[in-house]
Amino acid sequence: MTTQGQVITCKAAVAWEPNKPLVIEDVQVAPPQAGEVRIKILFTALCHTDAYTWSGKDPEGLFPCILGHEAAGYIVHSVFCLWHLYTLTGECWFIYLFFGRRIVESVGEGVTEVQPGDHVIPCYQAECRECKFCKSGKTNLCGKVRTATGVGVMMNDRKSRFAVNGKPIYHFMGTSTFSQYTVVHDVSVAKIDTKAPLDKVCLLGCGVSTGLGAVWNTAKVEPGSIVAVFGLGTVGLAVAEGAKAAGASRIIGIDIDSKKLDTAKNFGVTEFVNPKDHDKPIQQVLVDLTDGGVDYSFECIGNVSVMRAALECCHKGWGTSVIVGVAASGQEISTRPFQLVTGRVWKGTAFGGFKSRTQVPWLVEKYMKKEIKVDEYITHNLTLGEINEAFDLLHEGGCLRCVLKVDD
Amino acid sequence: MTTQGQVITCKAAVAWEPNKPLVIEDVQVAPPQAGEVRIKILFTALCHTDAYTWSGKDPEGLFPCILGHEAAGYIVHSVFCLWHLYTLTGECWFIYLFFGRRIVESVGEGVTEVQPGDHVIPCYQAECRECKFCKSGKTNLCGKVRTATGVGVMMNDRKSRFAVNGKPIYHFMGTSTFSQYTVVHDVSVAKIDTKAPLDKVCLLGCGVSTGLGAVWNTAKVEPGSIVAVFGLGTVGLAVAEGAKAAGASRIIGIDIDSKKLDTAKNFGVTEFVNPKDHDKPIQQVLVDLTDGGVDYSFECIGNVSVMRAALECCHKGWGTSVIVGVAASGQEISTRPFQLVTGRVWKGTAFGGFKSRTQVPWLVEKYMKKEIKVDEYITHNLTLGEINEAFDLLHEGGCLRCVLKVDD
Ligand SMILES: [Zn+2]
Ligand SMILES: [Zn+2]
Ligand SMILES: [Zn+2]
Ligand SMILES: [Zn+2]
Repeated sequence: MTTQGQVITCKAAVAWEPNKPLVIEDVQVAPPQAGEVRIKILFTALCHTDAYTWSGKDPEGLFPCILGHEAAGYIVHSVFCLWHLYTLTGECWFIYLFFGRRIVESVGEGVTEVQPGDHVIPCYQAECRECKFCKSGKTNLCGKVRTATGVGVMMNDRKSRFAVNGKPIYHFMGTSTFSQYTVVHDVSVAKIDTKAPLDKVCLLGCGVSTGLGAVWNTAKVEPGSIVAVFGLGTVGLAVAEGAKAAGASRIIGIDIDSKKLDTAKNFGVTEFVNPKDHDKPIQQVLVDLTDGGVDYSFECIGNVSVMRAALECCHKGWGTSVIVGVAASGQEISTRPFQLVTGRVWKGTAFGGFKSRTQVPWLVEKYMKKEIKVDEYITHNLTLGEINEAFDLLHEGGCLRCVLKVDD
Repeated sequence: MTTQGQVITCKAAVAWEPNKPLVIEDVQVAPPQAGEVRIKILFTALCHTDAYTWSGKDPEGLFPCILGHEAAGYIVHSVFCLWHLYTLTGECWFIYLFFGRRIVESVGEGVTEVQPGDHVIPCYQAECRECKFCKSGKTNLCGKVRTATGVGVMMNDRKSRFAVNGKPIYHFMGTSTFSQYTVVHDVSVAKIDTKAPLDKVCLLGCGVSTGLGAVWNTAKVEPGSIVAVFGLGTVGLAVAEGAKAAGASRIIGIDIDSKKLDTAKNFGVTEFVNPKDHDKPIQQVLVDLTDGGVDYSFECIGNVSVMRAALECCHKGWGTSVIVGVAASGQEISTRPFQLVTGRVWKGTAFGGFKSRTQVPWLVEKYMKKEIKVDEYITHNLTLGEINEAFDLLHEGGCLRCVLKVDD
């Protein structure tokens, strides 16, 4: 019996209201439409962005919704619009004229990069390879499906593919991985090595990749650099790991929880500073510790005061600070312009600057070759049914990533 | 009769108190000490930084002082410390041991790059080629004499070389060019082609170089770029000129004085926007005008609100904003961190990133080959005795640069 073209009913964790426990529901997942794929999610991790939206503090958060954006699974159904087929093949005008904008299912080999059976990581950052952003060669921020994913729907009909008893449930970040099945845009799917363990590489859908990319793509840390990492959660540790791989000579971890030091050392942190141990502002502590400031700093918390400190601890003349953490809505960063006029650079990164479809598979390969850590970030394993416990864990110091088994 | 080793009495414009007219005084200029040169200033221009300090709004401004930092002249006397001589020659330990830290005057050929008779532009940004900054290859911000120039004195004895009737007068920016003779550190002197007209190339000591360098060194504008320039004074026009030379496809000038448009066109501005003509915030006007934002923006005013607009009018994913203007003390810039996380970059520049001793002579050469404008920025010519009128002119829309003849 095929489910192609059919609604699939499965379990998903629905956030009905902000800050109320998620509820495991029987969710109807509509078949994919043009330019979409339906994915069976096997494993998903929780990330602070899920918790932030769930908390209700995100003014753009829409409820009810299915959260989740750090996952792995395989493609069940894929559908491409003929127009897309035409632009890919560069011929067959007659197909377009004959079928119009109707859609075909399970398009054959060679037409596109993903098809049923492929192992994939759904990515909240799309990569269409056609838009102004993708073609710029300067950014990973694809603009293709953003107008839909930003408001919890799919591009094709600007509707949701999720429903509970006929009531639509919004998508989240174009991924919604807290569900046994999800529907995402084809430009948001990274096809990965089928040999990769999905319960591990799901982490490459957000936190770990973001930290590594902030160092390699956004800051471009050089050998011998002095690096400061503010916040030693998953992203901060991935920054440390990336900095070590880049040959940094000193990697200074800053966190208000000194218990994090031991773990941090395993990821490359060479020195630890707890702001609570000092009366001076932390930027001054770091400037004193480094003969003028660090070469690169990374804010991995999402706190605007820390973002300022991260900039101001940079060395005059060249220090570069990268904002990696996501601040609460409405908050602003500030500093004296003199900080920039005297040579510091303030940047930010989203998904570490990685082009999702192109580079997530490469990150998976690096993991398979043991060139990057992934397993070490997983401190807890639970099931989708235990997701509320998993959210509780997220706020505990000892938890880096909790991976949920989503399948029955 | 030689003046070597002697105090020279000459005319200088002394700022006795903030915001009070400058007074032309007979000033005693002490002979140079180790690592210093005494320069006869022939021409100096006025810059907004002079006016800012003179106004009393600069909390680091010291009075009485001799302002001025955009000038040209020739070296009268130069003195180098033997230790410096030793490090340059790499031999002669005995000289050091024998003479100790005593100094010698008029060191012979080959010992250093400047000597009496050389035509020079004194530079507020030093370049020692020895300090951490100079050796970094990443910045033009030399640290060698900053601790002295920042507090109005010379490094050697941390005293001033200027006095009126025995009362010391502070130096300003390590240059103090509103004087017929001045004493500066040897690391702050750019030796230029003797054929260069000093009444013109004096402008390369600050404003014009800053604007060109902001584009070429700090932003590194590429051909085809869309550029926005906020503020169409000398620095802003130099930015436009630099952007045109870099091959920018659109150069949008923004100023609240529409009369500046005609002049701006001559410097490369292709479009003009007056914020007063729009109800929307200027950043939104520019985003709409450019299908998403500009590739590079430059703030050449020193207004922190404009700095924010300049950042926020940049294109998501790659737009880079460079702060060129100097904001009043205590003011802060701010924005939502989302602006940076989505790929914009915030930087600043001092003296356009040019290494003063190395690159000012190169800029002079470019002027001599008619590759960059200088004459076109000079709207007024007066004498040192008319300096108060020149300050008044600086605040008028029609004045770009007023060059003062300093010699009798
Ligand atoms: Zn795209
Ligand atoms: Zn995340
Ligand atoms: Zn100036
Ligand atoms: Zn130096």
